[in-house]
This record gives sequence, C-alpha cells and structure tokens, in this order.
Amino acid sequence: MSHVMLLLAHPRPDSFCHAIADRIRSVLTTSGHDVRFHDLYAESFDPIVSAEEAYTTGESVEAYLAREADTVVGRHRMELQDARGLVVVHPNWWGKPPAILSGWMDRVVVPGVAYRLSDATGVPESLVAVERMLVVNTSDTTAEREAAVFGDPLEAIWGRCLAPYLGDPSFVRQVLRPVTDATAAQRAAWLEDTADRARSLFCR
Amino acid sequence: MSHVMLLLAHPRPDSFCHAIADRIRSVLTTSGHDVRFHDLYAESFDPIVSAEEAYTTGESVEAYLAREADTVVGRHRMELQDARGLVVVHPNWWGKPPAILSGWMDRVVVPGVAYRLSDATGVPESLVAVERMLVVNTSDTTAEREAAVFGDPLEAIWGRCLAPYLGDPSFVRQVLRPVTDATAAQRAAWLEDTADRARSLFCR
Repeated sequence: MSHVMLLLAHPRPDSFCHAIADRIRSVLTTSGHDVRFHDLYAESFDPIVSAEEAYTTGESVEAYLAREADTVVGRHRMELQDARGLVVVHPNWWGKPPAILSGWMDRVVVPGVAYRLSDATGVPESLVAVERMLVVNTSDTTAEREAAVFGDPLEAIWGRCLAPYLGDPSFVRQVLRPVTDATAAQRAAWLEDTADRARSLFCR
Repeated sequence: MSHVMLLLAHPRPDSFCHAIADRIRSVLTTSGHDVRFHDLYAESFDPIVSAEEAYTTGESVEAYLAREADTVVGRHRMELQDARGLVVVHPNWWGKPPAILSGWMDRVVVPGVAYRLSDATGVPESLVAVERMLVVNTSDTTAEREAAVFGDPLEAIWGRCLAPYLGDPSFVRQVLRPVTDATAAQRAAWLEDTADRARSLFCR
C-alpha cells in the first residue's frame, strides 16, 4: 500500500517545525493520503551507523531487510521502500540536517534498500519510487546571505544528492526565515503557504 | 595552552579514514603540536541536541560552560575554545558528515561557546581562534560527477558555513576518491599527499 512518509527533526516539542509538520500532516490526511508520521526525537531514533552496518555489502535486499526487519531502522527502511511521497521538516543547522535526521539518511537510505548502483559510473537505480518530495526548512539567515555567503548546501543535499536515489521525485523546497523573532501573524501566514505547497504538490 | 583538535568519524576501526587520521596525528605530533585526537565512534560521542540544549539562549559563556563542564560535550567545547587548529577526517555521506560528526557540530559549535552574533545582520564574532583548518574526505564519486550532479555541499558546509564561525582560519580541504576499489599503492600515495598538506598547512 502506498503512502507518504513525513519526517520531523527538532528537539523542542513546541517548535515551529512541529507546527509545520502537524499542518502538512493534516492537509495530506484530509485529502486521503496515508501519512506515516515520524517525529524522530519522539521515537528516539538512533542515528549512529554501526561498524557492522558499514561492512554490509553484496547482500540481497531481501536478506538485508529481513535481518533488521524488527528494528526501528528496519521498519523505516521497509516504509521507505513502499513510499510514494516523502516530506521532511527540519531546521537548517550548519547547512545540514540535525544529526538525528542526518543519521536517518545514513541508516535508512542505504544500498540494497533504497537503491543499487547500476554500473561503474555510479549512477543509481532506485529500489523505491518516491514521486513527490517536499522539504521545509526553518532558518535565521536571510536568503541573500544564504546565497552569497553560505551557498545553501541543504538545497544540494536534499535535491541533488538524495532525491535522485529515491526515484527522482518532483522536488519542492520551502525555506521559512528568519524564524526566531517572527510574529505570530508571520508564522500563521507561513503555515498557510506551507499548506498550499503541500496541497499543490500532493493533491493535484 | 594552544593545541590542534583532530576529529575522526568513521564506524569501522580499520577504515581508511582511520589511517588518514593516524598519519596526520603523527605528522603534527612529530612537528611539536599538541594534538587532541577524538575518534568520535570510539568515544561514543552522543550527537543528539537535547530539548534543554535547544532552549539555551542569553546565558553567559561562563555559566554555559560551567553547567556542562564535566560532560563529554562540555570538554569538547572547552577544547575548541582553546584550539588554534582543527582537523576533520570523515567520509562523504549524502554530501554531509556522518551523523556522529553532524552532532558534534550541532552540540559543540554553539552560540555562547564558539561565537556570538554581533548584530542584527547575523555576522558572527568568534569566541575561538582557529587559525588553520584541514578537512579530509573520502568519497566514491568522481570529481566531475560531484561538481556536475551533486554540487559538493560538503565544501560549503565546512568552508563557508562553519569556518567563518571558528575565527575564519586558513582552510584546506582534500577529497580522496574513489576509495572503495583503490589499490594499496594508491592509498599509500594518498597518505603521503595528506601528510604533505598537513605539514604545509600546520608546520610553516
């Protein structure tokens, strides 16, 4: 059965990222999507790739999945293999996702589960078929400074590094900024904008 | 007392990253540097920013450091405040560091410890004075594919996002690739090259 995975990574349960994820979840659920919501902090997701995991090569997808099927990471892998949509909500920390979500990428989107390399050029063949992908980031850096000074590595990480390995979905990214001193009215407007983008991407 | 922090993040104790870090450590120690070496996996560094940490704002540097001084992360923060050099060795995973090192950035390089924002523009004023910084990455992507397809977000994360918050050190990054099928001779040549770069940056 196809579904949309929704990943949230923020340490504070009352964060604006939580409000964003709740809103997207509501929009998608209302329009009939089966949403698999994961607050990685609430799940105490373990982001550390073990030495044993790092040695894994050449194993069949089936054997690989079976071996860790009953673990949290095993369930995430199986969910990703069946997902038709992916939504990710997190703050921009040093141009990358928080460690808990970095580790989700390291442990869940692994060879033999999410993709295999089809030839010596390293071009991936996806084992998953995510068709639509929405990334929402919060930041305290202006768009001008992000582009001129930092180079917005998060855009490359999600859109150029990861998405092609997930089936090359339609990719939309929204950055809300600056959030720290934003008024309640500004936050409400952002939530509306996020809801519109989620509808436009997933409910067309 | 000034020193060089050397961070290593790879799950396999026999990894090529370990060999690289050992070589750099040897070069720097031989030339009289006080090297503080941290194999983050061996230390079981906890990369997860807690909710309590995420709420911290406005506290003085002294109070902040004192509160967590006796923890692993507290010791890393104090070491960073006194470091004149930083070396980081890790594989490229999805265009970002492995989660354990992502979390080192999230937890150690924090406001009030490593920097403070000097005004409303968000331009940082460093509380540390790292003068020289070396990043060595392993990868299985060719330089051409990295530039054309992925956009090399790691270069931006370390060189453009983080370095300016550490005192804007002289920054050198070396990427060794592709490592998976590299011969012993190739690896030996890479280690020599890395040693040369470490000497040239830190021992001039």
